[in-house]
Amino acid sequence: MSELLNSEVFLAYSTYGTIVLLKMLFMGPLTGYFRMTRKVFANPEDAKAHGAKDEEGKKKYMRTDPDIERVRRCHQNDLENIVPFIGIGLLYTLTGPDLSTALLHFRIFAGSRIFHSIAYLVPLPQPSRGLSWLVGMGVTFSMAYRVLKTVMHL
Amino acid sequence: MSELLNSEVFLAYSTYGTIVLLKMLFMGPLTGYFRMTRKVFANPEDAKAHGAKDEEGKKKYMRTDPDIERVRRCHQNDLENIVPFIGIGLLYTLTGPDLSTALLHFRIFAGSRIFHSIAYLVPLPQPSRGLSWLVGMGVTFSMAYRVLKTVMHL
Amino acid sequence: MSELLNSEVFLAYSTYGTIVLLKMLFMGPLTGYFRMTRKVFANPEDAKAHGAKDEEGKKKYMRTDPDIERVRRCHQNDLENIVPFIGIGLLYTLTGPDLSTALLHFRIFAGSRIFHSIAYLVPLPQPSRGLSWLVGMGVTFSMAYRVLKTVMHL
Repeated sequence: MSELLNSEVFLAYSTYGTIVLLKMLFMGPLTGYFRMTRKVFANPEDAKAHGAKDEEGKKKYMRTDPDIERVRRCHQNDLENIVPFIGIGLLYTLTGPDLSTALLHFRIFAGSRIFHSIAYLVPLPQPSRGLSWLVGMGVTFSMAYRVLKTVMHL
Repeated sequence: MSELLNSEVFLAYSTYGTIVLLKMLFMGPLTGYFRMTRKVFANPEDAKAHGAKDEEGKKKYMRTDPDIERVRRCHQNDLENIVPFIGIGLLYTLTGPDLSTALLHFRIFAGSRIFHSIAYLVPLPQPSRGLSWLVGMGVTFSMAYRVLKTVMHL
Repeated sequence: MSELLNSEVFLAYSTYGTIVLLKMLFMGPLTGYFRMTRKVFANPEDAKAHGAKDEEGKKKYMRTDPDIERVRRCHQNDLENIVPFIGIGLLYTLTGPDLSTALLHFRIFAGSRIFHSIAYLVPLPQPSRGLSWLVGMGVTFSMAYRVLKTVMHL
């Protein structure tokens, strides 16, 4: 176990992996914050807890709001892109890449995903969001290429 | 490989990690069960396989049902919260925490997520579901704090 | 680190894990391709970047399309099933199974998920998609059974 922690590449993976997972996790409270301040809920029991007094009030609170749907799409995009990074990134780390190459991959990925969230939530005009999404995916593909080149065992 | 399995913390992580992943996976068949017993489908070919004879019948079966949407939101919340636990929890395990501290984290997380599903599906009145969600997230943040404190390599 | 890479089971896990994660990741660009060719968008800034000139045009482009929803459901099903495979599969690999047994698990899973996507997107008549979903889940349950039998530490 201590051996893994002696590898600087593994420390870098752990640092950036934790950062992007925390960033993804943070979208949950953000959705909750928007739901509570705008009184827009997906469940009748939530509407009730926030002041809906009868069936009429619950219906009023249970609607869709474009800003909340935007946060949820951003969260979903994180799931779709950060999960493959975590899995492929761990295997990439174990193939023993150069520290500088690995850091380049991890930093670009983390930066692209943080920029992607900002571009989604502000929102910035396209193609800023689309490009940051492509950059992050490119990093994951580059790591996957090295993993498959190194370990291929079908 | 056998070294990792000599670590009791790693055995505990493997046990609780597998339990929460199985719990999450189980939401799939549960959705399927509701869809089949209530005849509510998302795809025309599913409606056809369950007795819809023509376009009219397919349309009748392809609707949204509040209980099925509830199961799906519960499943989505699992994805959003269990995935970061699995990733950050593995890194946390490799930082070599005390067995008792690690067990406390894993047990509280697993308990909070099982309770969260029950609170979502019964449904129990709020804030029971919201609190169990916060407790699970607190465990993940606490593990992430230890990971970043131990490995930080930017 | 090099120890793990000396294990053939770990090489096999890395290969098949990377393949299914890439397959899942590929659903993102596929959704993007359909959105761009059909001019169906979820965000007003995307509609604007693809030629919507005013509010009227944006509304026209922001609709739901049954084929795009199909790709998105396929992507979501991947997330729900491939993520547990990656987590439980890593732990299964570390329990030191026979190479032939492990390869059998990984190959059936990868095959079932690739067939699942084809069955979802063509679409093939049911129960082809349902069966491939069950086969993949069966593999994950079988691996989880071995993990829990080997490591159980509650």
